[in-house]
Amino acid sequence: MTERKVLIVYAHQEPKSLNGSLKTIAVEELSELYHPEQFNYGVEAWEACKNGSLSEDLIKEQRKVKEADLVIFQFPLYWFSMPAIMKGWMDRVLVQGFAHDFPQCYDSGLLKNKLALLSFTTGGGKEMYSDEGVSGDIRYLLWPMQHGIMHFCGFSVLAPQICFAPEYATEEERVQMLVSWGERLKTIWEEKPINCAVDGYFK
Amino acid sequence: MTERKVLIVYAHQEPKSLNGSLKTIAVEELSELYHPEQFNYGVEAWEACKNGSLSEDLIKEQRKVKEADLVIFQFPLYWFSMPAIMKGWMDRVLVQGFAHDFPQCYDSGLLKNKLALLSFTTGGGKEMYSDEGVSGDIRYLLWPMQHGIMHFCGFSVLAPQICFAPEYATEEERVQMLVSWGERLKTIWEEKPINCAVDGYFK
Repeated sequence: MTERKVLIVYAHQEPKSLNGSLKTIAVEELSELYHPEQFNYGVEAWEACKNGSLSEDLIKEQRKVKEADLVIFQFPLYWFSMPAIMKGWMDRVLVQGFAHDFPQCYDSGLLKNKLALLSFTTGGGKEMYSDEGVSGDIRYLLWPMQHGIMHFCGFSVLAPQICFAPEYATEEERVQMLVSWGERLKTIWEEKPINCAVDGYFK
Repeated sequence: MTERKVLIVYAHQEPKSLNGSLKTIAVEELSELYHPEQFNYGVEAWEACKNGSLSEDLIKEQRKVKEADLVIFQFPLYWFSMPAIMKGWMDRVLVQGFAHDFPQCYDSGLLKNKLALLSFTTGGGKEMYSDEGVSGDIRYLLWPMQHGIMHFCGFSVLAPQICFAPEYATEEERVQMLVSWGERLKTIWEEKPINCAVDGYFK
């Protein structure tokens, strides 16, 4: 099998959190594919880099993205979105000339041929995130991230992995969340992306 | 007239930017109402504060929100959302016990009886943010902020002030953007909020 690389962008304060465990499962499950130490640090001629305006930490992050076939974003949902520290990663890493370069955006975004997946935990229960719930269909809040960021950069977006309200779940239910994630990852490469285009996303 | 207070939360690197000017206009236009030096530093008994878990900078921000009748968020749209530094303000300032305290959320959020308004600039043109455009109806990307943050905390949300693609506008058009904002602010207190509930937002 062709070797494939996965980048996991992870934001949580507590390694022992469910988010920490979900991240660990992804690392373990994909471990034969996950060789961060083998990232190729070969010179890449990004425009922004050429301008000398990017700091070394960004260039390193961009190299990781460039090497990855799949980027997993693991985070607790804060305010219907990702935590600020992860938003900072988006704002700083996915610069023009690297992730997109008009008109190279959306289907022709510079990160096309890569997969992206949002894996997150919520505070509220599943029933809250529906058309009948107070928070509305969860696809609405995922729109800016899945369409506005991932799709914009050209990523093919896999269905999100959502653990609803782990704080209110039993230990058994929390373990099941981890097991499900592990099971899904076994066949992750066979999954088909969701439709993130304006005319298909909400259908 | 009763004195009313406005808090402007502003995020932009460059004071001379359009965002900087929009912020300045709001300060000037509302200046007879805007007395940051008069914020009452009287003791407030927030639960989180009582726990001693909040740093002084957060308590100061919460005091400003508490004193405000209207909170204006002024920012450039980054990745279909606010810049990370402003998201950090949301994540850190709007804590449970201050902005909401289940079941006190949405219509009964702790910041009810206050107004909130998103004022921002975009990279793309207006035609891109429509059902026919590649970025979709702009209400979709505003949903997490207007519904998921503002409405959740109880704010009544005024229509957003949007300056589309100032980078591609003529100087005259940019001036007009500032003039329009100033004009709008003259009667801002008479405006009726938009519907941010699940069953009314997209209608």
